[in-house]
Amino acid sequence: MPSRRARADQARQVADVLRHQIYEGAYDRALPSEADLAAEFFVSRNTVREALAVLKNEGLIDRGTKVGTHVAARKYDHGLDALVGLKETFKDYGDVRNEVRAVQRLSAPPAVARKLALEPGTQVVFIERLRYLADLPVSLDLTYLAPEIGEQVIDHPLESNDIFALIERVSGRRLGGASLALEAVSADAHTAAMLQVPAGSALLMSERLTSLDDGTPVDLEYIRMRGDRITMRGNLVRRDA
Amino acid sequence: MPSRRARADQARQVADVLRHQIYEGAYDRALPSEADLAAEFFVSRNTVREALAVLKNEGLIDRGTKVGTHVAARKYDHGLDALVGLKETFKDYGDVRNEVRAVQRLSAPPAVARKLALEPGTQVVFIERLRYLADLPVSLDLTYLAPEIGEQVIDHPLESNDIFALIERVSGRRLGGASLALEAVSADAHTAAMLQVPAGSALLMSERLTSLDDGTPVDLEYIRMRGDRITMRGNLVRRDA
Repeated sequence: MPSRRARADQARQVADVLRHQIYEGAYDRALPSEADLAAEFFVSRNTVREALAVLKNEGLIDRGTKVGTHVAARKYDHGLDALVGLKETFKDYGDVRNEVRAVQRLSAPPAVARKLALEPGTQVVFIERLRYLADLPVSLDLTYLAPEIGEQVIDHPLESNDIFALIERVSGRRLGGASLALEAVSADAHTAAMLQVPAGSALLMSERLTSLDDGTPVDLEYIRMRGDRITMRGNLVRRDA
Repeated sequence: MPSRRARADQARQVADVLRHQIYEGAYDRALPSEADLAAEFFVSRNTVREALAVLKNEGLIDRGTKVGTHVAARKYDHGLDALVGLKETFKDYGDVRNEVRAVQRLSAPPAVARKLALEPGTQVVFIERLRYLADLPVSLDLTYLAPEIGEQVIDHPLESNDIFALIERVSGRRLGGASLALEAVSADAHTAAMLQVPAGSALLMSERLTSLDDGTPVDLEYIRMRGDRITMRGNLVRRDA
């Protein structure tokens, strides 16, 4: 095994650790000098420079010859463990505001109907929201609600409430659990424009089917989150052998 | 609220549901005709065409005027709930083979040392693996192991074993749990070449710190997974109010 590695390999190695130091607030806004980072990571300044180029390319940092290296984007943690709405999740970071782009009754395509345990073609309630945290768009959410609950949910202000909270209010029941599928996709041009990112940017995309505590599925959501703004965090446990 | 929506909005709506139908194997390899999909989703053929363009752009389907629309990429499910190695996870899909790109002892940068509860500069074991499932690269894993366990792990064949399994074997202990941070990032050119995707492709990136069942942190990993190949799946529960 060669002990000498390509600079791009070493740069990736540095970038990965540095990325999380930035998230954890290790550097406030200004990063240390290239020389200091080189000493910290036991690598050459050229390797540091290439690692910083990787992070700049992701939009995480800004670099200027005169001004040095600065943190460009704040990332927000979203829990993977618990079922919590965005407003509730981000309550310590700032206000979540929803731009409601659509509220419709529509015939559920077979795949949507099946997931919500309805007959195909049943009229469901569809809601599309562009969600802002502190005036920055962070996610685009497409929501299909079971008809009875959906009709009551849309009687309430959707601009300022999490749908989770509204479902619990109108149903008088607690939410039970959700199944989640999480992927990375590239933003198509139209989505990118809405989320104010370059076309092709990496997005975290989730499909989430949420049920009431009696097991009834009520809320099917397709959520695109800006990759440069959201980190999903959770804990895993080793299952028994 | 206007009931008439832009075609791009409707197309996204169709693409999201269709995407998961493809993952769930609803269509085998050939997708239904545009007319059939239009009927299924209660939209126009133009909307279907635009939805298919979104999925083609993500590399999920292929389209040809003569041959119709086909599923291009198989996606594999990776669990978000349990702490399981890739070989163990994918045992029903095919063989996982690891190309070992580096095995090194190196001085832990302060951030790495802190996470592994070591003094800064402690020699840790670093392993880089490019991981293949059925001859297709699916992830690039950078691993830092605590020194004592790391030295024993690298005495075993890394090409064919999950590091999780090796840690349990050499330590005589079970793994306990892990903390996970999951993001979407764009592939830099060098990583993209290794994973055989276009530069800029969306990757799922995870930082995962795994501890033994006595709470000792032993394994810090930075993992880049191909967005077009891996879906993370798990279940969430509503926490008490």
